[in-house]
Amino acid sequence: MEKHKALQKLSNGYYILTALKPADELKTRDKDYIAAGIINWASQVSFDPLQIAVSVQEDSHINETIDYSGNFTLHVLSQKQLSLIEKFSEDSEITDDRINGVPYAVKDGMIGLKETLASIDCNLSDSVRCGDHTLHIGEVINSHVLEDETPLTTNERPSSYQGEK
Amino acid sequence: MEKHKALQKLSNGYYILTALKPADELKTRDKDYIAAGIINWASQVSFDPLQIAVSVQEDSHINETIDYSGNFTLHVLSQKQLSLIEKFSEDSEITDDRINGVPYAVKDGMIGLKETLASIDCNLSDSVRCGDHTLHIGEVINSHVLEDETPLTTNERPSSYQGEK
Repeated sequence: MEKHKALQKLSNGYYILTALKPADELKTRDKDYIAAGIINWASQVSFDPLQIAVSVQEDSHINETIDYSGNFTLHVLSQKQLSLIEKFSEDSEITDDRINGVPYAVKDGMIGLKETLASIDCNLSDSVRCGDHTLHIGEVINSHVLEDETPLTTNERPSSYQGEK
Repeated sequence: MEKHKALQKLSNGYYILTALKPADELKTRDKDYIAAGIINWASQVSFDPLQIAVSVQEDSHINETIDYSGNFTLHVLSQKQLSLIEKFSEDSEITDDRINGVPYAVKDGMIGLKETLASIDCNLSDSVRCGDHTLHIGEVINSHVLEDETPLTTNERPSSYQGEK
């Protein structure tokens, strides 16, 4: 039973969060650590410095990779990328130039997915444990708008990632 | 010049944040401290415990009042409450039963505004300084849905509270 239905009235977007720890910085493996996953909980939190915060499941690959790498990229999805939500909700299939079929490029140690609405590269400023999630606060160092579309929100496409589990 | 237009693609809602410090807990004044203001930066951050985070301007009345009171209420706005955005962006006019003309009730030391879409009462769990804002993380203890409407987002009504100042 949902006691706190009001939480479903918070407006969130749909985002793919990516993080990369390059292999040449690792001693025990020769392949990059790459993680990618869908999140709904993201927001700007400061103007100066320009910062955003993303809340990530504590026991997830993406959370661990952000801890290692000290940076992350938030990609915004529009209605055109609806099909990516399911693809990026499972374990990712990663090749040299695609994650779950979506082309990407690495620049300055960060992953830019090509077929998204916008992307925001951040250096990690702070991480705060919030219950079963970690809130990663990042300073925006680079950003790109790739499409002239409206962002998809949880109002048009309700997410199970709102309210109670 | 806006360098980081991608930040305007993050989807946020419109919220009125309220906080109350009752007079009977204060030594130096006999009137309640009440603060209320519009915010856009709010999100759920954890399932267990159920927590939300709100980012509030560092040098604001509402920020100070949350520090005093240790709790806050987030009210969600719909298209029907467009007129409240301007009213609650200025200094608040507070009477015994209205804030900026909107009726409210006090319950368990928290303020419930009546003419909003939904309200979420929180006990403060943690506060984190983020640049010119403070991120207040609160555990949800009570919530109400008051209307069967869709929340208003920054996609329908762009806010100056996104991207760079």
